[in-house]
Amino acid sequence: MLYLIGLGLADEKDITVKGLEIVKKAERVYLEAYTAILLVEKEQLEAFYGRPVILADREMVESSSDDILAGADKTDVAFLVVGDPFGATTHTDLVLRARELSIPTRSIPNASILTSIGTTGLQLYNFGQTVSMVFFLPSWRPASFYDRIRENVSIGLHTLVLLDIKVKEPSLENLARGRKIYEPPRFMTVAQCAAQMLEIEEEVKKEGVYSRQSLAVGVARVGAEDQKIVAGTLEQLCEADLGRPLHSLVLLGKRTHDLEREFLQEFAVDAEVFEKVWRRDYVGNE
Amino acid sequence: MLYLIGLGLADEKDITVKGLEIVKKAERVYLEAYTAILLVEKEQLEAFYGRPVILADREMVESSSDDILAGADKTDVAFLVVGDPFGATTHTDLVLRARELSIPTRSIPNASILTSIGTTGLQLYNFGQTVSMVFFLPSWRPASFYDRIRENVSIGLHTLVLLDIKVKEPSLENLARGRKIYEPPRFMTVAQCAAQMLEIEEEVKKEGVYSRQSLAVGVARVGAEDQKIVAGTLEQLCEADLGRPLHSLVLLGKRTHDLEREFLQEFAVDAEVFEKVWRRDYVGNE
Repeated sequence: MLYLIGLGLADEKDITVKGLEIVKKAERVYLEAYTAILLVEKEQLEAFYGRPVILADREMVESSSDDILAGADKTDVAFLVVGDPFGATTHTDLVLRARELSIPTRSIPNASILTSIGTTGLQLYNFGQTVSMVFFLPSWRPASFYDRIRENVSIGLHTLVLLDIKVKEPSLENLARGRKIYEPPRFMTVAQCAAQMLEIEEEVKKEGVYSRQSLAVGVARVGAEDQKIVAGTLEQLCEADLGRPLHSLVLLGKRTHDLEREFLQEFAVDAEVFEKVWRRDYVGNE
Repeated sequence: MLYLIGLGLADEKDITVKGLEIVKKAERVYLEAYTAILLVEKEQLEAFYGRPVILADREMVESSSDDILAGADKTDVAFLVVGDPFGATTHTDLVLRARELSIPTRSIPNASILTSIGTTGLQLYNFGQTVSMVFFLPSWRPASFYDRIRENVSIGLHTLVLLDIKVKEPSLENLARGRKIYEPPRFMTVAQCAAQMLEIEEEVKKEGVYSRQSLAVGVARVGAEDQKIVAGTLEQLCEADLGRPLHSLVLLGKRTHDLEREFLQEFAVDAEVFEKVWRRDYVGNE
């Protein structure tokens, strides 16, 4: 059996009891380590599980999935995924390949940022589609996120923006030369995301889908003890420092509930500005 | 400290290791038991935790929250929630009340149907806002879900429909007479949901937001070993029997990915019909 096991968001103890039992018994244990990370190192997981853990990078999962699946028709293989196995990044390909090989699969759900973002007090019923934000390059500023946000905004919904992470990726120069030398890991911050969003609005699209005065919420390390939430205008969030990764951002839609305001005000960069903008632009649209 | 602890979706072992540690040490343990249920009884939880569990019904949470919070400034109180503490049903009120009383709170995230629905192979990026479906009464057929679905459909997105459950609710007759006699629990099925959706489209709204030929996916007991997924037209789902609760339904949007088709076809009521409708109505809209 191939088990896809969600690890949740913060540390080794966010695995479910059921997931942990499977990890302890599995023949091999892989950790998908390129689309999200826990806030602890692999060694801490190994100590907690009492088992060796094999890091699975993008290359292994995309090109050598049969190695991962080897023998899984007779024994159990555990494939660990940060968050939920079918959350922001799905591993549909791996499951479909297992199906082709007549290997049964089962997934063990866990928390994902897509629902844990509810810890901000924003109601999940008021969210539209989720979008991703990648690191811009001087000559590459993909703006498809903007069109998705426009759709959400047009019906008053919040947008969760998931932020780029670069783990074990070659630099463009090394990629061009075929060298497998990797850049140090990079994680986009709430401030970088807010700045890129404004850059696309102000320099590229100019459609007024949002502005410097739009309200947004930045979060860091959701589910961890030092979880941080900051609410403010996009302009304010450009200056926010939420500390170490992972970060995410929510752009507020205008279909709000007053409980959302009440819950969020505690996290406002500047309570007065937050209240003023909310009451001017975000009230009475339900 | 007030801990809001997610229990996940299926049984007692879906709690996280972190959550279990808190439950074992807390002064009192409450289980919110009116907006969702696990697939096991309270006694099974108590045996697993080695602790008594107090059932918290709607009345207790809404009217006697100070009893739940009593002493939580000095000791730990655990409030258990099926799914994620901030998932489909939020307990914002309880957290705000704790804040007023200067009681610190912390939430322990877990799986929610809002992300575990990804187990169908449908990509969470392609979902719009989530809606709820309540049991219709002869003179009460609330159709606000239809307007939300229309918004999602207009931008090509899938809609997750969460289905009504009635646990410990008085009948209207008993409610009118002030008697606290409760009806037996009821859980909406995928078939009932599909039928109510068609009823609103065909008899009330008639806007063609969806039809008998629209594709949908029914799920039951997500995360459990006997999890069931059924894909078909709304007309087919009106006849589908997915067994015991809880059920949910997804109405497909037209912004699809071919991997979604490939993953879903295994669960089709009728593979031929599914392929035909998909290729006619759901292809090439990305």
